[in-house]
Amino acid sequence: MELVGEFFGTAVLILLGDGVVAGVLLEKSKAKDAGWITITTAWALAVCFGVLVAKALGSPGAHLNPAVTLSVCIQSGDYSIFFPYAIAQVSGASLGAFLVYLHYLPHWKETKDPGKILAVFSTEPAIKHTLSNVISEGFGTFLLILGIHAIFSPLNGGAPGIAGTGFVALLVWAIGLSMGGTTGYAINPARDLGPRIIHSIVPIPNKGKSGWKYAWLPVVIPLVGGGLAAALIRFVI
Amino acid sequence: MELVGEFFGTAVLILLGDGVVAGVLLEKSKAKDAGWITITTAWALAVCFGVLVAKALGSPGAHLNPAVTLSVCIQSGDYSIFFPYAIAQVSGASLGAFLVYLHYLPHWKETKDPGKILAVFSTEPAIKHTLSNVISEGFGTFLLILGIHAIFSPLNGGAPGIAGTGFVALLVWAIGLSMGGTTGYAINPARDLGPRIIHSIVPIPNKGKSGWKYAWLPVVIPLVGGGLAAALIRFVI
Amino acid sequence: MELVGEFFGTAVLILLGDGVVAGVLLEKSKAKDAGWITITTAWALAVCFGVLVAKALGSPGAHLNPAVTLSVCIQSGDYSIFFPYAIAQVSGASLGAFLVYLHYLPHWKETKDPGKILAVFSTEPAIKHTLSNVISEGFGTFLLILGIHAIFSPLNGGAPGIAGTGFVALLVWAIGLSMGGTTGYAINPARDLGPRIIHSIVPIPNKGKSGWKYAWLPVVIPLVGGGLAAALIRFVI
Amino acid sequence: MELVGEFFGTAVLILLGDGVVAGVLLEKSKAKDAGWITITTAWALAVCFGVLVAKALGSPGAHLNPAVTLSVCIQSGDYSIFFPYAIAQVSGASLGAFLVYLHYLPHWKETKDPGKILAVFSTEPAIKHTLSNVISEGFGTFLLILGIHAIFSPLNGGAPGIAGTGFVALLVWAIGLSMGGTTGYAINPARDLGPRIIHSIVPIPNKGKSGWKYAWLPVVIPLVGGGLAAALIRFVI
Repeated sequence: MELVGEFFGTAVLILLGDGVVAGVLLEKSKAKDAGWITITTAWALAVCFGVLVAKALGSPGAHLNPAVTLSVCIQSGDYSIFFPYAIAQVSGASLGAFLVYLHYLPHWKETKDPGKILAVFSTEPAIKHTLSNVISEGFGTFLLILGIHAIFSPLNGGAPGIAGTGFVALLVWAIGLSMGGTTGYAINPARDLGPRIIHSIVPIPNKGKSGWKYAWLPVVIPLVGGGLAAALIRFVI
Repeated sequence: MELVGEFFGTAVLILLGDGVVAGVLLEKSKAKDAGWITITTAWALAVCFGVLVAKALGSPGAHLNPAVTLSVCIQSGDYSIFFPYAIAQVSGASLGAFLVYLHYLPHWKETKDPGKILAVFSTEPAIKHTLSNVISEGFGTFLLILGIHAIFSPLNGGAPGIAGTGFVALLVWAIGLSMGGTTGYAINPARDLGPRIIHSIVPIPNKGKSGWKYAWLPVVIPLVGGGLAAALIRFVI
Repeated sequence: MELVGEFFGTAVLILLGDGVVAGVLLEKSKAKDAGWITITTAWALAVCFGVLVAKALGSPGAHLNPAVTLSVCIQSGDYSIFFPYAIAQVSGASLGAFLVYLHYLPHWKETKDPGKILAVFSTEPAIKHTLSNVISEGFGTFLLILGIHAIFSPLNGGAPGIAGTGFVALLVWAIGLSMGGTTGYAINPARDLGPRIIHSIVPIPNKGKSGWKYAWLPVVIPLVGGGLAAALIRFVI
Repeated sequence: MELVGEFFGTAVLILLGDGVVAGVLLEKSKAKDAGWITITTAWALAVCFGVLVAKALGSPGAHLNPAVTLSVCIQSGDYSIFFPYAIAQVSGASLGAFLVYLHYLPHWKETKDPGKILAVFSTEPAIKHTLSNVISEGFGTFLLILGIHAIFSPLNGGAPGIAGTGFVALLVWAIGLSMGGTTGYAINPARDLGPRIIHSIVPIPNKGKSGWKYAWLPVVIPLVGGGLAAALIRFVI
């Protein structure tokens, strides 16, 4: 049941998350050019409802993100769930991206810019510069894991029930608003990889390349940044 | 008493919901061109206060939406409330739209674009394409019903009291921001039908046609999409 | 103590509420042209912190608004508090507006448009049309009182503690976003009258008239609209 | 442990707070020109997660601001914590600003305006006018301390657990939206001094002077404004 929750929760995450990017970037959308506040607000809410759906379908952890799963593994010392969860998450993210493709069906051919089309699915850095992009994705995911730890820390009262999910959404809002300007805050390997696979498959008239050269970075670095945060929390705090 | 709550709750929903579209689209309004973030935020709050008013007036379910009522019927197996509720909701939505007409009274004749005038009342797709529009309204309502189920799931702690209403508002905010760019997220037959009736009746100088050719879709498809979600929740989850 | 709370609470309400209008309208402000979402969000938060300060200083009702006080009088049948409260509220609003004058001191002479300068202090309708303006202020205040009743209704769980204050702020956010485009949603006689008095007194280079011809409307109509809502709640609901 | 919490909590505060200014002002950022609502929302969330991280790392007070620490000292009568806390806060703020420098590494040389580069780190008034700037920073910090007192007042129910942190974030949102247009609402000596030190050190191609002439004001005046609020709360309320 946990894997079902991870699968559909991540699908909801990407349907809403990639959905807002489609709404803001694709031609003739009513949300066209609604800007960064719109994109970041919707991604925060995407996390909120991805998590709530995942929990309601049987995944009480509601990771939706291999970097979160890895950090849970590091803190528990049990790595057996990592690959099943990661596969469910990437698969769910792929489904979510395919639903976005369907949802905005007639808007693709109206949009001529292949950069915008790819941006609906997956992240690309504002300025390609590997070291900086590594820093950005690493810092962002580090703060994600540290922030989740802080939200649910007994020293903060434990954030019982649905309130904790609300604060995780606020955390993603914060990271997006403040740290997303550089690489677009993937901070989640599934969020980036699943939709990129779909981008490479679906028939979109003006789509360009799927950016596979950059694709390793938002997969690997969130695992490193999140893993470092988890190790720090386990062994230092 | 439930029907009184549904009637006035839906009236508040549409007064605030159609009200923000009037504020953003009609000429000389102080909210002119305030954009998608303004529209979607206000619709989310419209749901919040529509629900709170409906509950305070005696409708503990506070559906405000025939698609929600149908999903409750499907989950309970008792369909007797559907038509009374739906009639109360469409009537309340009509009242709400008429109040918006009065509230923005001198702004109508300043506005020359009949498309904007209709958009204050009811939805029209960004790109007319029946299959895609069906998908958009179907997906949106499916997620609405699934999300409401998740919010109140005991696996999420049950969202007691007023907090649950707050999260339903966040859900509508999410659907609007991420999925509204295509058809304007009616996701509610009453929300679309009631105001369209009012549009066809009230004397507005530059109003055009009321879009009756499209009107079936945001009535029928939310019932289908929401019904499918409810059936899935009942028989699978 | 209640009057001290009403006085300083209303001062905070206006310092933050008129403050954001100053920030968005006055020349050289860092918030220049930040738009309707900024103005309405800040007014909602102004209510939140006006209420919290009023309560912390000894006014558990935290009305900050003669229309709210009148509606409490109508529901209790005891009108003795009306004038003391209203005087404290108008005085506090005047103090708040004077603090805004000081806070934005060097920005006044940079601003040439007397309409913008007056708009920082008090409301003016987008289109002068007495009947419509009466409808707008009446509807807005009616919904304010109905919404407050709904928030604290036992049928909504009673909104205990600080959460209730948060929902009142959301209510004002909703009214502003959806109904503020016509008259600027005074919906509070003190909010409009106190700052207008200050506008007529303080030495601002390019200020024009203080709009006294219109001033009666946002004083009288919120009392009527809110009073009607209160009577309805008492005698019907 | 308190100092560790203050150090890292203030680092998170500035990473997110200065981070959003970098995102909005630096060239080629995806958040470029996202405006005042974006900046103020992110600063509010920066406070939220700075506080949660500080508490989770062992500082239950989570001041993150020498003006808050001073106000606590004034209310308790014990000044021994002031300098250790202030040093931890300024050091943490410096670390946060350095992380922002790293996070936006390739964007600095794209940005030619030294005023924007300094604005990422520290505040500068919209109009240089010492008395007015003193008033703005004084009023802002006075309201910060008064608002925190109100949020946690038993007369408001005490804001238990994580909800109190949420309302402190809303308070900073309110102050920023409504009062930030003049001096950029430092309202925190550490927030301004730490990043200014980093600005003067890090190698940025087009950076200008670090604004040291103005630097005393956002250090001294928040202490005065916050101290006055604390004295008033202790001796009058």
